[in-house]
Amino acid sequence: MAHTPASHRDDALTVEARSDAQPGGWARLRRYLPILRWLPAYRREHLPGDFIAGMVLGVMAVPQSMAYALLANLPPQVGLYATLAPLLVYAVFGTSRTLSIGPVALVSLLTGTMIAQLAPPQSAQAMQLALLAALVVGVAQVALGAMRMGFVVNFLSHPVLSGFTSAAAVVIALSQVKNLFGIELPGSASPLADLGHVIARLPETNWVSLGMGVAAIVVIIFFHRRLGRALVHLGVSEFVAAQVARSGGLVVVLIGTLLTWLLRLDQTAQLRTVGHVPAGLPPFTMPVFDPSSLGAMAPVLVMLVVIGYVESVSIAKSFASRRREKIDADQELIALGMADVAASFTGGSPVSGSFSRSAVNFASGAATQLSSVFAAAVIAVALIFFTPMFYFLPETVLAASIVAAVLNLPDFETARQAWRYSKADLLTLVITLVGVLFVGVESGLLIGVASSLAVHLWVTSRPHVTIIGRVEDTETYKSVKRHKVKTCPHVTALRIDESLYFATAKVLEDTLIGVAVDNPALKYIVLDCSAVNRIDLSALTTLETVDNELRTMGVTLVLSAVKGPIHDSLLRAGFVARFGQDRIYLSTHEAMKALECT
Amino acid sequence: MAHTPASHRDDALTVEARSDAQPGGWARLRRYLPILRWLPAYRREHLPGDFIAGMVLGVMAVPQSMAYALLANLPPQVGLYATLAPLLVYAVFGTSRTLSIGPVALVSLLTGTMIAQLAPPQSAQAMQLALLAALVVGVAQVALGAMRMGFVVNFLSHPVLSGFTSAAAVVIALSQVKNLFGIELPGSASPLADLGHVIARLPETNWVSLGMGVAAIVVIIFFHRRLGRALVHLGVSEFVAAQVARSGGLVVVLIGTLLTWLLRLDQTAQLRTVGHVPAGLPPFTMPVFDPSSLGAMAPVLVMLVVIGYVESVSIAKSFASRRREKIDADQELIALGMADVAASFTGGSPVSGSFSRSAVNFASGAATQLSSVFAAAVIAVALIFFTPMFYFLPETVLAASIVAAVLNLPDFETARQAWRYSKADLLTLVITLVGVLFVGVESGLLIGVASSLAVHLWVTSRPHVTIIGRVEDTETYKSVKRHKVKTCPHVTALRIDESLYFATAKVLEDTLIGVAVDNPALKYIVLDCSAVNRIDLSALTTLETVDNELRTMGVTLVLSAVKGPIHDSLLRAGFVARFGQDRIYLSTHEAMKALECT
Repeated sequence: MAHTPASHRDDALTVEARSDAQPGGWARLRRYLPILRWLPAYRREHLPGDFIAGMVLGVMAVPQSMAYALLANLPPQVGLYATLAPLLVYAVFGTSRTLSIGPVALVSLLTGTMIAQLAPPQSAQAMQLALLAALVVGVAQVALGAMRMGFVVNFLSHPVLSGFTSAAAVVIALSQVKNLFGIELPGSASPLADLGHVIARLPETNWVSLGMGVAAIVVIIFFHRRLGRALVHLGVSEFVAAQVARSGGLVVVLIGTLLTWLLRLDQTAQLRTVGHVPAGLPPFTMPVFDPSSLGAMAPVLVMLVVIGYVESVSIAKSFASRRREKIDADQELIALGMADVAASFTGGSPVSGSFSRSAVNFASGAATQLSSVFAAAVIAVALIFFTPMFYFLPETVLAASIVAAVLNLPDFETARQAWRYSKADLLTLVITLVGVLFVGVESGLLIGVASSLAVHLWVTSRPHVTIIGRVEDTETYKSVKRHKVKTCPHVTALRIDESLYFATAKVLEDTLIGVAVDNPALKYIVLDCSAVNRIDLSALTTLETVDNELRTMGVTLVLSAVKGPIHDSLLRAGFVARFGQDRIYLSTHEAMKALECT
Repeated sequence: MAHTPASHRDDALTVEARSDAQPGGWARLRRYLPILRWLPAYRREHLPGDFIAGMVLGVMAVPQSMAYALLANLPPQVGLYATLAPLLVYAVFGTSRTLSIGPVALVSLLTGTMIAQLAPPQSAQAMQLALLAALVVGVAQVALGAMRMGFVVNFLSHPVLSGFTSAAAVVIALSQVKNLFGIELPGSASPLADLGHVIARLPETNWVSLGMGVAAIVVIIFFHRRLGRALVHLGVSEFVAAQVARSGGLVVVLIGTLLTWLLRLDQTAQLRTVGHVPAGLPPFTMPVFDPSSLGAMAPVLVMLVVIGYVESVSIAKSFASRRREKIDADQELIALGMADVAASFTGGSPVSGSFSRSAVNFASGAATQLSSVFAAAVIAVALIFFTPMFYFLPETVLAASIVAAVLNLPDFETARQAWRYSKADLLTLVITLVGVLFVGVESGLLIGVASSLAVHLWVTSRPHVTIIGRVEDTETYKSVKRHKVKTCPHVTALRIDESLYFATAKVLEDTLIGVAVDNPALKYIVLDCSAVNRIDLSALTTLETVDNELRTMGVTLVLSAVKGPIHDSLLRAGFVARFGQDRIYLSTHEAMKALECT
């Protein structure tokens, strides 16, 4: 019965304290600039792996980043610009050794949605909006990271993320249908509206575009799913086979460009190509502040901050855990934010970690972020020397590579688990999915997050309450319905499986009064508080009211297993003095012993 | 270790089941028409009490309801109409024997806010809006009651209600300043803007109006706070003294009206009076549906549904508990809804339970709802015979009675308790208060509710985690920081004081990995789940990931005291099979015994 008053904080494990430790001077610099940790300790044996991985990553990133620029309603070179500087900046600030930063599907989709509402696609104005978005998102992420607010992403539940990703894959694929069919639309509206327009204009289909696009999708999938395994069967090494399997995107780009150039398909078949891409390194750009656009952009910006980070940090974590490396979630926010800021000053657009490119980087043997530096060099070379080659790169091929990439996104496994494990989780998944598909990418995600919070509150507001009794000769008390337990007529021991807060206060009242009314012989109610993690003011008020009501009914309320921190608060509020310390027991067993019911 | 699979529902106390019981036929009719319970059993000895209480209640309700009509930007007779039929209807459907229904301060304030945005005050259009509001609110309440959705009000926490009530008192008092000063404003904007206009026009003050208003406030307060006690000291009976103490409002109405009539103050001093009030019983009115207004009214309507009900049912409960009577929360929704519907068809406005009038009814000896029927008769008599007397009733006197009434509303006690007990609760109280005062009555309440939910989620997302050990020779395990307990180096027992859901999944991961990293000698972690009331899919995924990570670190994770319903879900999802039933123990003591740490 001895509750030693001690502060909540003292008692808490130092999980937060540990990450809150503020190292000084050089240590602090090393904390914020992880490159100071890995570069001085760089071992020569890592160089070949980093070099090969960097080359492969760079070659893969060139067409992919142009494709995602297209998805973001931006000119193709913006994708390249958004890859170069961010790769270098992340190498300095990032804590992951293999994460590859740049334009990715979800972030480009969000950027594209925002641009479609405010500017003509691929216009100078669209580019300005992208710069501004990258700056604001980057600054916000750096600020959140510096304030150690990385935890806010904890509020994005697994089912919400799963529903969002699956629906986004569908939205992204739909958005590329017009490019595959080679149909020019007046302006980009919602993906579903776009699809409607495409269907209405099906007779205008460019069959060369469609044929080349479908062929490209088939080739990429064939490379990815079959060719690698076939080569291994034929005796090719696993490493080479994996590189080949991932090169489908590059192969279709080369073949598509070659075919278009040789047959002049851009003129003979009106095939839309990437066209003129300015040669040279990324320009220095100044984002222009425009308060009226910023207001309209706000919801998407919030989402870019959160989704970009969640995607990036999850990918970083998943690869780090395979090599037992550690990711610092707050430093990752800073690193991603700096990469976004870098993109905004070099003609880019918002970025995030790319799963496919990080996987290639990892599989190709990258040991440190030096591979990103090599990849950046590849992109620089492409920008300086190879932009004329992009002239004949067909847009349908880029669309095909986007479609092939997002085919892996839909997540049926989480839905299946939710179906079996928890219908509440399934509900939030479905709400998010339907919201993103039919209401909109940003609103859908917000609806999903709100629904996951609402479902959690709803579940906690209807707590499980059970009468408990002693299990055999132990001091363990369990549900009378589930276990063979001892009880007595003059005492009812109750366990409420939820914190006592405003939403559960009424259940508490109804339960205690109900038990007293239903058992006229009852003298004592023992309320087992082992599952009560919080008692808020509403519940405390209810508890005092109910205690008075029970008293007039001749029933004495007794509390057991009250947690230390809660006991401290009750003490501070004077509740313990009013209620009586002698009615608060350390354990249910002690209470039952005292009430002669053991 | 034997977890008998049993459904969650089986195990639950039948709190919900009890109120879900559906009686058939006559019993069901008696359930929905409580008058069938009390009227056939009416005892003659109750008649004098009911009669006197009804007379007192009726006489008090006449000026009060006109004052609240003024607050609601409606003509005075609407207040009388909104009292008559609702009193009768509540007598049929209500489960409280003493609750008095009609126009009240908060509901009239909300109605007035809504009308101010959509129609000129006291206009025919304003009356139409009030009818429509009463109908929609009433139908919604009846529907919610029939669906047993009374529990939704559980989400209005005590601090939010307290902050709302205090702020609303200020808003109501401010709204009456112009009437006290006798200043005519162009149109009603926000209360603060109104106050600004009044200050700007202070030179136009009608000193007769101000003098009479202030005098009326002083008289009412004197009657209420001093006269009663003084009379008791002089030997007058408690009952009579209490009646006199509450008659201040009536006295100032009579004196004010008399003075105005005798001195023709309406002409000699331009004193604004109630003016012409149509004689006769309430008219039959048809609310007109107007979709465009309904859209603009929607937020206020939601609030009227909720606030009207919360106020009504709390008052009903507080008086019922003094006499050990029972209030059925769902039937109360139906009764209040029917009263609102009745108001909408008889020229009224939205209603709720009145604390002051219910208190008078209770104190004057009402034993059943028959007193409400007598009170309704008094109002009918007033409407038929006495409306010409209201012509000279000064508005400043009605304003004074509103101000005097709301002076009791501000709730400092809850703020003081919150300050001592829980800063989180204090925060939501202050947010609600500031929101209502500076953002608006409806938005402020919404902000308050949202903040209380956010605070709760925030608190639960940062759970208390502690290492536990065995207390002496008991089977109780408590925090190592707070109690003298036994521990061993190869086992760490941890208790996490929160459900495992998406917002706490990361804490779970960080804690378990952190403990393993910090203790190289560690072989086992026992996770005491006695405070875990829910494991959602996000947390389950994290648990499996962490278990794999711990395994590769040579640490075995063991669960103890998993609650029955959660164990069932884990079993269903296949987690128990994958994790191993032999790693799940009935209690922490059993786990520690098995791991040889006791």
